[in-house]
Amino acid sequence: MNIQDFFELSSGKWFSHRTSHHLAFKQSEDGKSDIAIEMLPPDHPEVVKLCQQYEIDPNAATCGARVTWNGTMEWDEEKHSGSTVLVPVPDADNPNEGKLLREMGYAEKTPVAGRYIMGSDKALTLITEYETMSSEERLWFASPNLRMRVSTLKRFGGFSMASFTSEIRMGGVQPSERAMEAFNQA
Amino acid sequence: MNIQDFFELSSGKWFSHRTSHHLAFKQSEDGKSDIAIEMLPPDHPEVVKLCQQYEIDPNAATCGARVTWNGTMEWDEEKHSGSTVLVPVPDADNPNEGKLLREMGYAEKTPVAGRYIMGSDKALTLITEYETMSSEERLWFASPNLRMRVSTLKRFGGFSMASFTSEIRMGGVQPSERAMEAFNQA
Repeated sequence: MNIQDFFELSSGKWFSHRTSHHLAFKQSEDGKSDIAIEMLPPDHPEVVKLCQQYEIDPNAATCGARVTWNGTMEWDEEKHSGSTVLVPVPDADNPNEGKLLREMGYAEKTPVAGRYIMGSDKALTLITEYETMSSEERLWFASPNLRMRVSTLKRFGGFSMASFTSEIRMGGVQPSERAMEAFNQA
Repeated sequence: MNIQDFFELSSGKWFSHRTSHHLAFKQSEDGKSDIAIEMLPPDHPEVVKLCQQYEIDPNAATCGARVTWNGTMEWDEEKHSGSTVLVPVPDADNPNEGKLLREMGYAEKTPVAGRYIMGSDKALTLITEYETMSSEERLWFASPNLRMRVSTLKRFGGFSMASFTSEIRMGGVQPSERAMEAFNQA
């Protein structure tokens, strides 16, 4: 499975259930969201614009995705909604690893590119280094309709949080034929 | 990392925090336990006895572990405590895979041997097939003092539960030198 296949398999609408374990406090926090993931072709204006923001040749991008979410967290009662664009840019010498560009969130002042590694076990690892913290996330499909994610957050070098997300494809919509092929291939 | 190294690195006392996502109900349930894991040599009487119960030559066992837990679940207020013995029996042709013998729990009438696969990525996968359900668990170390587990449960062929466990080594006790070597080796 390559990174485009992973994005293709992720396309659609999902019910996303995240539980964060705050390690120092031994407390967990639940969050639930509806998520929509839409594939964008490499020549889509938003993909091109994001590449330009990161000063990367847009021809190096292989695809993109727009992710939109709408959810609630347990510890506050505000609605959390938003959207972002993700663009993987494979390394020239190894398409299974590369940069992952992301539209800047409201909390970030400068664009932070993460690293992605598409494993031979069909799991996608995302690593992002911020100034005082770093996150590592592993995403994989238990089935074409059940996506799972585990992420850890390090602050000042020590683990502060571990999160687990189970994501169920919303009823009615089946994964595309191409996505099913990606899941089933050896 | 081989299966003995994984057991060695698991030895000690842990605070274990499990969150189960009941997929059909979109509900999560927390459980917290203190866990103690103690390595047993392959010639330990309990290892030998367990092999005999499964009609396996005790000489095929490479090590064993006694796991003791004491915890609470969120949805009831009873104490959950117990202990079990685990014994990996490597396949003759590939020591990174094999049977995992387990002392019978109170819910089981016949001994059920699982399969273990020690991955080249240092993650341990355990697969257990029961009559009407099957479970698959992946365990790995984010650091020598932070163990993580993700498990899925299938009932009648469909996923019914996904669980995440973060386990923090209890303060004061450091992993053994051999365990640190196992974690650090390439």
